[in-house]
Amino acid sequence: MSEGAWLLHPQLAADTTHVGDLALSRLLAINAADYPWLILVPRRTGVVELADLGGDAFPLTAEIGVVSLALKELTRCDKINIAAIGNVVPQLHVHIVARRKTDPLWPEPVFGVTPLPRAKEAAFERFVDKVRKKLGAAQVR
Amino acid sequence: MSEGAWLLHPQLAADTTHVGDLALSRLLAINAADYPWLILVPRRTGVVELADLGGDAFPLTAEIGVVSLALKELTRCDKINIAAIGNVVPQLHVHIVARRKTDPLWPEPVFGVTPLPRAKEAAFERFVDKVRKKLGAAQVR
Repeated sequence: MSEGAWLLHPQLAADTTHVGDLALSRLLAINAADYPWLILVPRRTGVVELADLGGDAFPLTAEIGVVSLALKELTRCDKINIAAIGNVVPQLHVHIVARRKTDPLWPEPVFGVTPLPRAKEAAFERFVDKVRKKLGAAQVR
Repeated sequence: MSEGAWLLHPQLAADTTHVGDLALSRLLAINAADYPWLILVPRRTGVVELADLGGDAFPLTAEIGVVSLALKELTRCDKINIAAIGNVVPQLHVHIVARRKTDPLWPEPVFGVTPLPRAKEAAFERFVDKVRKKLGAAQVR
C-alpha cells in the first residue's frame, strides 16, 4: 500500500493526459468530445478494489468530492457520474464524468461505450488547463 | 441533509428488495440473474451528488467498503463494480455489483444494460438472506 514503487498502469497512461497529482491520487483526463472526463488513481501499489485501500479510501472520497465539484462548476453539467469498474485495467481508478441532458447518450451511462468521438486537441488542452487552474497550485503538484 | 423526512425514491422502491439499514444507508438488492447487485442509498434528504453529502460521504465510503467485501466473499466474484450515476433517478444511490469473468457481459460494464434476465425468486431470496446474515444483526437493523 506504499507509494514507493507505484507506477501508473500503462493502459491508463496511454489513454489519458496527466492533469496533476492530489495528495493521494493522480488526476488524469480522457479526451471524449461530449463527456468532460477525469480519472483519479490512488498512488498506492497493489490496490484493485476500493476496500483494498483501507483508511486511504477516505482521502480518496474527499478527492472525488473536490474533483466532482470542480468539474461540475467548470462544465455547468447536469449530473456527475462516478464509477470504479476495473474489469479491463485492474489498477483501482475512479471515473468522474460530467453529463448533460443534451449529450448524445443521455440518460444512458457512458461507461464501456466505445469508441467515443474525440475533441479537437486544442479544446481538450484548454479543458485540462482549466481543471488544473480550478484545483489550484496548492492541490495539483 | 437530515434523516427526518427521508423517503426512498419510488422508482428505487419499485425496482429493489429492502435488505436492511446500515448506520447511514438503506441497503437494497436488485434481482439480476447473472449479476449479484446491491445498492446503497444514504438516508439523507435532497442529496443528488456525492459532494452534497458533505461529511456523510465518509461513512458512505465505509459502508461501500463493508458491503463490497461482504458481496465479494459471498459470491467469490472476480471484481466488484461500483457506480453512482443517477441520470434517471436523482436520489443519490450507489450500485455495488459482483462481476465474474464468466458472466455474459464480462468485461463490459453492466450499468445501463436493460432488460437483464431475473433469477428465480427463491434464488434471489436466498441471496438477500445471505447478505443480511453476512452483514450481521448489529449492522442491518
